[in-house]
Amino acid sequence: MTDLEIFTLAPGFRAAAVACGLKTSSAMAASNLDLALVASDRACGAAGVFTTNRVKAAPVLYDQEVLAVNATDIRAIIANAGNANACTGARGMADARAMAALTAAALRCQPEQVLVLSTGVIGRHLDMTKIAHGINELTSPRALHGAIHAARAIMTTDTRPKVSHRQVTIAGRTVTISGFAKGAGMIHPNMATMLAILTTDAVLAPDVLQAALRQAVERSFNRVSVDGDMSTNDTVLLLASGAAGATIGGAELPAFITALTEVCIDLARQIARDGEGATRLVEITVTGAPDEAQAHLVADTIARSLLVKTAIHGGDPNWGRILCAAGYSGVALDPDKLMLAFGPPSAPIVLVAAGLPTTYDERAAAALLRADPVLITLDLGLGDAQATVWTCDLSAEYVAINAHYTT
Amino acid sequence: MTDLEIFTLAPGFRAAAVACGLKTSSAMAASNLDLALVASDRACGAAGVFTTNRVKAAPVLYDQEVLAVNATDIRAIIANAGNANACTGARGMADARAMAALTAAALRCQPEQVLVLSTGVIGRHLDMTKIAHGINELTSPRALHGAIHAARAIMTTDTRPKVSHRQVTIAGRTVTISGFAKGAGMIHPNMATMLAILTTDAVLAPDVLQAALRQAVERSFNRVSVDGDMSTNDTVLLLASGAAGATIGGAELPAFITALTEVCIDLARQIARDGEGATRLVEITVTGAPDEAQAHLVADTIARSLLVKTAIHGGDPNWGRILCAAGYSGVALDPDKLMLAFGPPSAPIVLVAAGLPTTYDERAAAALLRADPVLITLDLGLGDAQATVWTCDLSAEYVAINAHYTT
Repeated sequence: MTDLEIFTLAPGFRAAAVACGLKTSSAMAASNLDLALVASDRACGAAGVFTTNRVKAAPVLYDQEVLAVNATDIRAIIANAGNANACTGARGMADARAMAALTAAALRCQPEQVLVLSTGVIGRHLDMTKIAHGINELTSPRALHGAIHAARAIMTTDTRPKVSHRQVTIAGRTVTISGFAKGAGMIHPNMATMLAILTTDAVLAPDVLQAALRQAVERSFNRVSVDGDMSTNDTVLLLASGAAGATIGGAELPAFITALTEVCIDLARQIARDGEGATRLVEITVTGAPDEAQAHLVADTIARSLLVKTAIHGGDPNWGRILCAAGYSGVALDPDKLMLAFGPPSAPIVLVAAGLPTTYDERAAAALLRADPVLITLDLGLGDAQATVWTCDLSAEYVAINAHYTT
Repeated sequence: MTDLEIFTLAPGFRAAAVACGLKTSSAMAASNLDLALVASDRACGAAGVFTTNRVKAAPVLYDQEVLAVNATDIRAIIANAGNANACTGARGMADARAMAALTAAALRCQPEQVLVLSTGVIGRHLDMTKIAHGINELTSPRALHGAIHAARAIMTTDTRPKVSHRQVTIAGRTVTISGFAKGAGMIHPNMATMLAILTTDAVLAPDVLQAALRQAVERSFNRVSVDGDMSTNDTVLLLASGAAGATIGGAELPAFITALTEVCIDLARQIARDGEGATRLVEITVTGAPDEAQAHLVADTIARSLLVKTAIHGGDPNWGRILCAAGYSGVALDPDKLMLAFGPPSAPIVLVAAGLPTTYDERAAAALLRADPVLITLDLGLGDAQATVWTCDLSAEYVAINAHYTT
């Protein structure tokens, strides 16, 4: 975990946040900040991974439009919470464009150098008067300057900001990768319902940057599930300022992707841990699969099971629900080869071997379901591939949070 | 709804139930009855539809084995609650066979004339001493005789028995279709986690009987979702005694399938209404789809969304969550063509037209989400096909029920 007090973005980036009055619901009262700016004085390479939902929010469509023509000279990201600007039609698109234009005017750059993020309630138009006022404030001394404030400003039902920072030495130069994310409900892969802003001071060719981000997202944000609901707004953006002067390509790329993936996994775990109503992080690893995609599918199906998640919440080692979920995942598994264990690989409790229950210590198994994180390993006995998915327990508090979100 | 007090199976069938001590958990205390028998003195045609879960309970494997060789001379179904006999290996298969053999001995028929159903906790061996004693009691005057008792005996976390009865005139003869079902949690299509026993006094050729059952199940039990978890034990069995002497085939078949489907839908709706922790039935109809499969997929995805189900629970007309779920269903919908309405077709409140929010009365819309049943219609504007799915709201009580099921 990165220390919140000293959290910074990569060299070359600055961030600020203000409260412009977009968050009205009591469900979003974790922070009053609701508008965040990340900016760079240098032209940044940019990459983005977006929701695959057919119903895409205006800022998602806008960013995809921008990145299609300009992935090499992005200067800023403007992000608001409290309103998703989704299901808002042509006026929503105009509002997203206006957010970019207002930000460009404040920073003295061009609108097509600004990316836009929104999160919050669906189907309501943005209050552009408040947004315009907020954007002006962001570049004034009255704003809260610093990345931790920006991390707080994009929170909705999150209870705490999610930040991650890594420094690695690649080909003799120090490279920084640093970012923040939000997301607590409507969380499920492709993409999880969340926003993440990542920064690096390295230099990467546009297609390499995009490929690196996609690869990192695949093993991090796309492997977290809170409630199985995929959002209209999910976006991960990565800006590369080049301030470190280190060009990443060829031989340096694997080390960069590893560090980027670590940052993404760190943020993804924080999102799962802070799932709405969650009391603990749950890490589900499926091993012995024929390939990684099938390992992921089984792990994901277990992570989505309400019965598994409620059993974990209650500390009830009701392992039949885990095998049941694996069984309906669609993967052609052999029930007689399944091995299920709780706890760390160094000291596991094996509950099922060769498909049958062992005589395990029920009290010790229950204790492992009350630990944080909860570690669950299911071996399919079919191959060498594996995948890990992060989720959380499902509590009555999740229902309480979501039964009255807009009202 | 069929009157519980006068509920009977089709002519030619009798039923009984006893409490043999298999239900130990407080979560299963709705009825102490836990062993049910449905029997016929005549050779019955039999059809079955089973879970597609790769992890199949022993009675599912056993019944599939029996029906593969004998679908024309079934005499009885023995069903227990309190223990699913799943993940129990070779001993579980031996126990399922023993249940059939003990029942056959009591009824003086052959083991391969008896089908077996189990529901309850996974991964524990059946107490065959209790089962053997219970089977003997079932044919004694000490048992509770009558189908309503059998319907109660197969309940687990159900709060009430689910029964349905229809009489139709086909080709001048009165045909009865009558059955009962259970299921409250671990409910999701292919099959929903439930057991259903259907009886008719008609005569159908084995392959016609099986096709008729599959067709009825497709539009009823396969369209109900409580929590998205598909069970290891789901089974629907249909026995045809022929007591009415009416042979169904050719021209009579559509009327029979319609009546059978009505009985199955009636039972499926009762299952959704009685979902664990549910306070009301939710009926989601998707119209204007290119084909029925895509209509079903969109409706099913909405029905699975925790955010939709919690919003309904709270009476919060947060319609963005419904469009969001439709958007990630995988169906290539056009957001600009979506129409969303709450309430009956005769007096709907349209919340979204052409993809954009209308100026609807929020208080009236919220009232429709507090009605029982809740009626939601989403029109895709892409074709003429439609499908209806039944689910329920998601309450904190669901979590409470499932956090401590085995402990």
